[in-house]
Amino acid sequence: MSQVKLQAPAGEMLRLLEELAAFSAPGPGVTRLLYTPEWSGAQHFLQEKMLGAGLETRTDAVGNVFGRLSGTGGHDKVILTGSHIDTVVHGGKYDGAYGVAAAVTALGYLRDTFGPPRRTLEAVSFCEEEGSRFPVTFWGSGHVTGLYSGGGAADCTDLEGITLREAMAACGYPASGAAALRGDIGAYVELHIEQGLVLEQAALQIGVVQAIAGQRRYTARIGGAAGHAGTTPMGLRRDALAGAAEMLLWLERAAQDAGDPLVATAGRLEAYPGTPNVIPGEVHFTLDIRHSEAGILEGFCRAAADAFAAVARRRGLTLALEETLATAPAPMDPELAGRLERLCVEQGLTHRRMVSGAGHDAQLFAPRCPAAMIFVPSRGGISHAPEEYSSPEELAAGLNLLTALLYELAYL
Amino acid sequence: MSQVKLQAPAGEMLRLLEELAAFSAPGPGVTRLLYTPEWSGAQHFLQEKMLGAGLETRTDAVGNVFGRLSGTGGHDKVILTGSHIDTVVHGGKYDGAYGVAAAVTALGYLRDTFGPPRRTLEAVSFCEEEGSRFPVTFWGSGHVTGLYSGGGAADCTDLEGITLREAMAACGYPASGAAALRGDIGAYVELHIEQGLVLEQAALQIGVVQAIAGQRRYTARIGGAAGHAGTTPMGLRRDALAGAAEMLLWLERAAQDAGDPLVATAGRLEAYPGTPNVIPGEVHFTLDIRHSEAGILEGFCRAAADAFAAVARRRGLTLALEETLATAPAPMDPELAGRLERLCVEQGLTHRRMVSGAGHDAQLFAPRCPAAMIFVPSRGGISHAPEEYSSPEELAAGLNLLTALLYELAYL
Repeated sequence: MSQVKLQAPAGEMLRLLEELAAFSAPGPGVTRLLYTPEWSGAQHFLQEKMLGAGLETRTDAVGNVFGRLSGTGGHDKVILTGSHIDTVVHGGKYDGAYGVAAAVTALGYLRDTFGPPRRTLEAVSFCEEEGSRFPVTFWGSGHVTGLYSGGGAADCTDLEGITLREAMAACGYPASGAAALRGDIGAYVELHIEQGLVLEQAALQIGVVQAIAGQRRYTARIGGAAGHAGTTPMGLRRDALAGAAEMLLWLERAAQDAGDPLVATAGRLEAYPGTPNVIPGEVHFTLDIRHSEAGILEGFCRAAADAFAAVARRRGLTLALEETLATAPAPMDPELAGRLERLCVEQGLTHRRMVSGAGHDAQLFAPRCPAAMIFVPSRGGISHAPEEYSSPEELAAGLNLLTALLYELAYL
Repeated sequence: MSQVKLQAPAGEMLRLLEELAAFSAPGPGVTRLLYTPEWSGAQHFLQEKMLGAGLETRTDAVGNVFGRLSGTGGHDKVILTGSHIDTVVHGGKYDGAYGVAAAVTALGYLRDTFGPPRRTLEAVSFCEEEGSRFPVTFWGSGHVTGLYSGGGAADCTDLEGITLREAMAACGYPASGAAALRGDIGAYVELHIEQGLVLEQAALQIGVVQAIAGQRRYTARIGGAAGHAGTTPMGLRRDALAGAAEMLLWLERAAQDAGDPLVATAGRLEAYPGTPNVIPGEVHFTLDIRHSEAGILEGFCRAAADAFAAVARRRGLTLALEETLATAPAPMDPELAGRLERLCVEQGLTHRRMVSGAGHDAQLFAPRCPAAMIFVPSRGGISHAPEEYSSPEELAAGLNLLTALLYELAYL
């Protein structure tokens, strides 16, 4: 156990965050989409910063940037830490960039203070996680972990019709990212803003992530009978919107009854024909359901499908439920989570265990190696918006905790 | 009481309906919008048909067409019968046109069979009722009854930016329709398709309308808090769509509990930002509430506003409810309705009293003179669509009933 006094240079990290925010397309907030000039600029800038911090740097076949601090102990497995450099359109300064800036700062500080580690440390800036430009997500960590092997996804297009393959070629990357696959990752640690209200409402400094929730998405299509709002008595209606309303209320109540961390959301709803004096004959809505335990997630989704079918049957409506996405829950490594909790106590940081309802690069590592995630509070729970904010003190606390964990893992 | 055997020529009326349907803009069904070439063609064609039926014809200052069968009894009040000639976009053959064709056919038949009446009869083809081209409704009957006096509505525009004033000028009508006002209408009788399911489901031939429902329309705007679908626990949400769903279910249940003829409809609903993984922060929906009694309508709308406010308060949502339309219920004349019921019995027509949930030209006459409406069944309750249909037998039954009433009122 480390009793060394660690004091990573938070000022350097905050400056780095500000510098990264300047690599943005015009408009409010930060817009840094995969393989755009601002994205290239940010990755080149980071590579220089890594060099300046005394790290060996390299870019892989899809544009992930690594900064390596080689270990002296003869271990063949690397401790990897970082996050993603891409943003949503008009996003904030912290989502992804915080974990990258902290990783570079922590490794530079550890090298300067303690010299080379026993085990190799690497900072990483993943090229893509958000799915904002192309309809793929985890393009960076997905290649490193083997989710993507260089196949079909490269033919998808952005809003301007440019294929992912063309965008890669324009940045000098090969058509296949297969060479980005790594078999030498021994642990993955990611520091990230919470993007939710939990820590702020509980007035805590740190969230130790115990699992990243699995996710199911569905599109529900409800068919009823359109009709004249004046001439169709209530008893002769098959109102698709009233049926949808009953389903949505069931969903909300059932999710509340299931308790945290279950969340269920209908984010998009469209009623047709959408005319004030016509009874809606058709309604489409989306479902997004998440939980950290596969069995509970599966059971809830099955119960929702059954409940919706019962509502539809009783009302004489048709129901088609199409699954559009399914990701498994990703448990974080309990041993690493335990270390983080102990380190919080040692550093006097208020903290709690929690589930991440949002997806993160760490979920791709969790099935392959011990993975850990640290959250810091997000003001108002706001993310993916220019108003995204975490205070310098909160960001510094997260950096210190990350640095302490990396020190234990690599130096002791 | 008439014991004369009446047999109006249904074949002529059906032929007239088919001929009118040919005056249509291209596309499915019938599209005959106010002051368009197809509308002008239909009104000119009708004027010729009226002349052919031995009626004195004239067009008024807004394009209503009248065919007069002058009475011999020295009465100064006219018995007016007809409906409107305009349609919705891609409408059917029967809405409006049926009442016009039947009026012309009935008057021609009465004149041929019985000669001039004691009281003057007039058939009318109102220029506009639907509000399909310009954002005004009842442009024809509204001028005859004084709802419109030739003022501001003429400056509104259609989808192509043409003002109502310009459209009128292009057809040769003066800017003011004030001259269309009439003080000599002694009774108004309108034959129309039901546009609902009530008669079909009850397997009845005739609906004797006792009142046209009053109508209230509102736009509801619900404000909550948008948030990440994954990172916002159920207990920390202010989901505008879940709140709207609770309001819509209340509305449906309360309308069912209130019983016929109360109807309440949310026809349009939009959720913002409308993204599958974002909790809706704002929802807008429309309300359309109708009943034939002003007090009940008013009470229901007040109860809905209270219930919605309570839902919003409990959920921490904001609610803005804006009234966008309010029309009073229009009771039909009980004496005329009673005559119609007796005539149904005499003619062996199955029938019921009913409320019209849809608006009709008759509602503008009801406050000014005795008004009556006759409904015939609509197949599947479908209207305002190319599939609109009533069988020749149903249409003929309505024509016979109309003819019998006009005979009693004008000849006996």
